[in-house]
Amino acid sequence: MSIRARLAAMNLQLPKVAPPVASFVPFVRTADLIFVSGHIARRSGVPWTGKLGKELTTAEGIEAARGVAVDLLATLQIACGGDLDRIGRIVKLMVLVSCTSDFTEQHLVANGASQLLLEVFGDIGAHARSAFGVAQIPLGACVEIEMVAQLA
Amino acid sequence: MSIRARLAAMNLQLPKVAPPVASFVPFVRTADLIFVSGHIARRSGVPWTGKLGKELTTAEGIEAARGVAVDLLATLQIACGGDLDRIGRIVKLMVLVSCTSDFTEQHLVANGASQLLLEVFGDIGAHARSAFGVAQIPLGACVEIEMVAQLA
Amino acid sequence: MSIRARLAAMNLQLPKVAPPVASFVPFVRTADLIFVSGHIARRSGVPWTGKLGKELTTAEGIEAARGVAVDLLATLQIACGGDLDRIGRIVKLMVLVSCTSDFTEQHLVANGASQLLLEVFGDIGAHARSAFGVAQIPLGACVEIEMVAQLA
Repeated sequence: MSIRARLAAMNLQLPKVAPPVASFVPFVRTADLIFVSGHIARRSGVPWTGKLGKELTTAEGIEAARGVAVDLLATLQIACGGDLDRIGRIVKLMVLVSCTSDFTEQHLVANGASQLLLEVFGDIGAHARSAFGVAQIPLGACVEIEMVAQLA
Repeated sequence: MSIRARLAAMNLQLPKVAPPVASFVPFVRTADLIFVSGHIARRSGVPWTGKLGKELTTAEGIEAARGVAVDLLATLQIACGGDLDRIGRIVKLMVLVSCTSDFTEQHLVANGASQLLLEVFGDIGAHARSAFGVAQIPLGACVEIEMVAQLA
Repeated sequence: MSIRARLAAMNLQLPKVAPPVASFVPFVRTADLIFVSGHIARRSGVPWTGKLGKELTTAEGIEAARGVAVDLLATLQIACGGDLDRIGRIVKLMVLVSCTSDFTEQHLVANGASQLLLEVFGDIGAHARSAFGVAQIPLGACVEIEMVAQLA
């Protein structure tokens, strides 16, 4: 089953990627690796703000991370010319969780993104990962995720 | 001297790598790079918890970082089919230190891991590195380290 | 215009890179990628300390990040044998901002580095990026930046 078909079966529609307004780009492709910029959590189009361990529950963090993964896929789709079947492997995620200094479930939050990638890509979606808690994220977002992927 | 012989000479035994129970994998190999997931500090098999600048001294942080490096080597050994002599270069470490907002010796903590890699690999163990302090690490661990290595 | 000429036109002189005294190296080159270690902000040769949201304004953070980018270029120049025209692409920045838990302008601080790279390299200076706030940075520095670049 193609990734396109699997996304449809999952009833998952990738968002349009906003044109970059910043002094960096959403992704850079080298020989075979695609480095995707950190994407922040959004809800209804605006940054999903707050800290885990304070304003957000772990369940909400998981949902936020899943949403970021969907946005990363939308950017990744552009990076491979519109066809996600050209991806050979999801290589690595770096998952940043804005949290209090005593919140220790960053790995559970990160699973929201990791699971989505496994559902979409199957075996080639299995990736290396680091997850940790940070003091803050741009615009006050609760989660930010950076990705490295490899072309087939 | 082979890496295996050097580990023996250092009286350093690599631990068995626990089977991954999570939604990510311990490492991903691309063409020539191995991306190793963030590994957290453990002591007696359980997460070594606490913050630098509060519950842990810098000396303890150094020991924790050295322990993480040993665990990273165990994973790296699997990634290169059991033979660490196939490693051409340790490319990069990202060293995360769970700490108070006024602890500024993350670089000293990180040296615990960097020194171990130099001892084991010699010149090819010399790596690029970033070290910094984070709000928290999964399961409350004091140190987390991610590695990129290159096959020979 | 060569990068050397552009740096001169910008009246930008790259600093001498201090010999590494630590247990890691300023950069590692793999096949085509250069991984540059995290460089911390300096002013008058000493670490530029303090936190955004407390001791430093966003404008100062931007200036600090720009200064780090200049230092990264100095290291990158060594990594490509003295000739920055051998760089094919600035691939990725990771920008760490030491800040209070309510400072949310890490992206603006990071722009200080990103803009400098665009000015120096033009289109090939456009990079992927992650920026976030951390609890602390070695030696109390306000900003730390890590870079990945690709040879032409």
